[in-house]
Amino acid sequence: MGDSLQPQLKVSFRKSIAMGPGKAALLDAISKNGSISAAARELGMSYRRAWILVNTMNNSFLSPLVETLTGGKRGGGARVTEFGEEVLYQYRSMEEKATKSVRTEMRRFAEYMRD
Amino acid sequence: MGDSLQPQLKVSFRKSIAMGPGKAALLDAISKNGSISAAARELGMSYRRAWILVNTMNNSFLSPLVETLTGGKRGGGARVTEFGEEVLYQYRSMEEKATKSVRTEMRRFAEYMRD
Repeated sequence: MGDSLQPQLKVSFRKSIAMGPGKAALLDAISKNGSISAAARELGMSYRRAWILVNTMNNSFLSPLVETLTGGKRGGGARVTEFGEEVLYQYRSMEEKATKSVRTEMRRFAEYMRD
Repeated sequence: MGDSLQPQLKVSFRKSIAMGPGKAALLDAISKNGSISAAARELGMSYRRAWILVNTMNNSFLSPLVETLTGGKRGGGARVTEFGEEVLYQYRSMEEKATKSVRTEMRRFAEYMRD
């Protein structure tokens, strides 16, 4: 990873982050892998941690972003719900818009920094 | 603190965050208090942690953002340099611009969340 000059969007709900870069990456990985454990592995995250992040998201929004399928926690895989995909899409759109809005300033800011 | 629906800007340098919400708040507090230890106290942060954040900032930018005055680490106080004030100003401006750019979308996004 090189230098990152990019706004990060963190949306808080009460005291927890409801949506942020880590949770968005996890949603992407669950969507791709169809399982929380495979997603966690891909991101180098413990299963326990991934599960906590999923729970926080599911508890912060009006309806679940991720649902687990039959077979229990580790057994039957998981999927991002239609609502979850919509939330993720809106989040990515905001991220892109915020990034674009300060692109020029970010480039100027980078000149203040060491090589 | 209520819900926060605000982009956070984190500017990374190599593997560390060179500037972000915590470091910007620390710069503000040093500027106001004229001392790292008083700033740390105001933010409920250990002196050690504040000192680490200051070092990271000073090492990430072309010249120091904070300089300590005679009397040693704890003795003589500290001040935000002119360059540090400029970096902070540019950071705050980007933060404001990024926030404004997604204000409408953030309001819509908030409707996805629980009350």
